[in-house]
Amino acid sequence: MAAAAPPLKDELDIVIPTIRNLDFLEMWRPFFQPYHLIIVQDGDPSKTIKVPDGFDYELYNRNDINRILGPKASCISFKDSACRCFGYMVSRRSTSSLLMMTALEGSDFVRGYPFSLREGVPTAVSHGLWLNIPDYDAPTQLVKPLERNTKYVDAVLTIPKGTLFPMCGMNLAFDRDLIGPAMYFGLMGDGQPIGRYDDMWAGWCTKVICDHLGLGVKTGLPYIWHSKASNPFVNLKKEYNGIFWQEEIIPFFQAATLSKDSTTVQKCYIELSKQVKEKLGKVDPYFVKLADAMETWIQAWDELNPPTKAK
Amino acid sequence: MAAAAPPLKDELDIVIPTIRNLDFLEMWRPFFQPYHLIIVQDGDPSKTIKVPDGFDYELYNRNDINRILGPKASCISFKDSACRCFGYMVSRRSTSSLLMMTALEGSDFVRGYPFSLREGVPTAVSHGLWLNIPDYDAPTQLVKPLERNTKYVDAVLTIPKGTLFPMCGMNLAFDRDLIGPAMYFGLMGDGQPIGRYDDMWAGWCTKVICDHLGLGVKTGLPYIWHSKASNPFVNLKKEYNGIFWQEEIIPFFQAATLSKDSTTVQKCYIELSKQVKEKLGKVDPYFVKLADAMETWIQAWDELNPPTKAK
Repeated sequence: MAAAAPPLKDELDIVIPTIRNLDFLEMWRPFFQPYHLIIVQDGDPSKTIKVPDGFDYELYNRNDINRILGPKASCISFKDSACRCFGYMVSRRSTSSLLMMTALEGSDFVRGYPFSLREGVPTAVSHGLWLNIPDYDAPTQLVKPLERNTKYVDAVLTIPKGTLFPMCGMNLAFDRDLIGPAMYFGLMGDGQPIGRYDDMWAGWCTKVICDHLGLGVKTGLPYIWHSKASNPFVNLKKEYNGIFWQEEIIPFFQAATLSKDSTTVQKCYIELSKQVKEKLGKVDPYFVKLADAMETWIQAWDELNPPTKAK
Repeated sequence: MAAAAPPLKDELDIVIPTIRNLDFLEMWRPFFQPYHLIIVQDGDPSKTIKVPDGFDYELYNRNDINRILGPKASCISFKDSACRCFGYMVSRRSTSSLLMMTALEGSDFVRGYPFSLREGVPTAVSHGLWLNIPDYDAPTQLVKPLERNTKYVDAVLTIPKGTLFPMCGMNLAFDRDLIGPAMYFGLMGDGQPIGRYDDMWAGWCTKVICDHLGLGVKTGLPYIWHSKASNPFVNLKKEYNGIFWQEEIIPFFQAATLSKDSTTVQKCYIELSKQVKEKLGKVDPYFVKLADAMETWIQAWDELNPPTKAK
C-alpha cells in the first residue's frame, strides 16, 4: 500500500487512529511525510478514509483487524481511540503516535548522585506534554471551561522508579523492542462500561513493568499545541465509572510487584493481568474481562511478532 | 540584640552561617531586612563579625553554642557550614536559610489523578534551585570547570513519595513545626572525615521522615544566582570519603522504613539514627559517631524546645 515517496526514515512508525478524515495531515506534512504511517480506521469499515497524497502509509479498518487477528480481535477496542494499539502491534519499528523521539541527554549530575548510577537506564517511553487545551477529566473540564495551559516548561524529567503517571496517548513515543507488548490500550468504547482510560491504563501497566525491568520513562518536552477541546458531557459519560475505579486502580498499581521469573515484557504483562483479575476483579466484573483481553493481546502480539524477533 | 527596625514579618527566620564577614547582606538588604536573622558564626569565636546596620538579628558564636548546649554541643559541627543547623534549633519560627517560602499552588490535576488525593499534603520542605555556578561534586567541577547552568525551568515539583533527592542548603525553606527536628546537618568539617555532605544528609533523613509522616517536599522555583564557585581541590578532599560512602548511603535510605510507633519527627529521627548505627556503622565507624550525634541533636532540640511547644 506504500505510495512512491522519498527515502523514509526507518527508525520509527507513526500510528494514527482516526474515525473521520485525515485532513489534519496537511498541517503535519513537514513532520510526518518522512515517516511511515500506520493508520487505524475506527468505526464503520465501509467508509473510505482519504489519505492526502505523498504519504507512505498502511491503513487498517475493522475488517482488516478481524481478518488478521481472527477471534483474538476481541481484544482491540471499537469506536474508541484505544484501537490505536493495533497499530503498535503491526508496526515493525519503534512507534510514536505523534512526532516525538526519545533523546539521550548530556545533562550532568549534581552532588550526591551516586556515581554508580550515572550511566542511567535505557529510555523505553517518552511522554510529551501539551499546551493550550489541558488534559482534564470531565469534572474539571466542566468546572474550568476556559482554563488553558500556557506554561511552557523547558525540561525533560525522568519519572522516578515507583512513581506512577497518567499517561496520555496524544504525544507519545516508545521503544517497541523494549516495551511494545505492554502498550495495550485496554477495552474501551463500544460495548464497554468505560472510555478515555485507554492511555492511562497502558501507562500504569507500562510504568510498573519498566520499573521491574530497569527501563526509564521520561516526560516533558516536546510540547504539542492542542486546539480542539473534547465535549465534557460526552467525556463524563465515558469516564463516569473510571472516576470511581481509579481510586482502586492507583493503589493496585502502586502495590503491584512482579516476580523475578518475569524477565520479558510479555511475561510481566501476563503476570500483571493475573493480578488485575484477582484484585481488581473484586471491584467490578469488567476487570475480569479486561484481564482476559490482556492475555489475548499478548497471544496476538506473539503471533504477529514471532518470539525469535521479539525480545 | 535586636536593632531598631520596622515591624518584622514574623512567619520566618533567616539562618545564615558565616565564617568571614557579612558584607553580602548589603546586596540582600531589600529581601532580608524585613525578617529576623539568626547568624551562626563559625570558626574562631574571638573574631568579631560586623553586621550591617538596620538588620534585626541574633548572633551565636562557638562560645555561645557551647554555653547553651553544654556537652551536647558536640553534635554541632565546627569549621563547616553544617553549623547552621544550630540556628534552626534556636529559631522560634519557620526557618529559611535563603529567601524562600513554600506556597500552596492553585494548579489543577490532569485526568487519572485520583480525586481522593487532590487535597494534597502539607508542604514541609521547599527546596529552591540555582542558576550560574552548578551544584557539582568535586570530580564534576574538575572535569567541567566552565559549565554554567543557564536554564531557568519555570516549575515547582513535588518530589514523589519514595524518591530521594540531593538537598542543597543554599536556598532552602522548611516548616519548623512540621519537620524541624529532622533538619540536622550532621558531623562535618573539623575533626571529621567528611565535609559537604551536611545538607544532603539532612535531605535524605528528612525525605524518609516526610514520606513516613505524609508530608510534602517541593523543589524548583525560586532560583537564586550563584556567583562564587568553591574550590574543587578543597572540595575533593572534603568529599573524598562521601563519594564512596554515598554508594551505600543511598540504598540505605531507599530501603529505610519507619515503624507505626514513630508518630513524631523526633521519634522518627531516633529510629532512623538506630538504623544508621546498625547498617551504616558497618561501612565506617564514622556512622556510629554520627548516629550518636543524631540522638544528641534530638535531646538538645527537645531541651531548647520543650515538648509542650514542639509537635
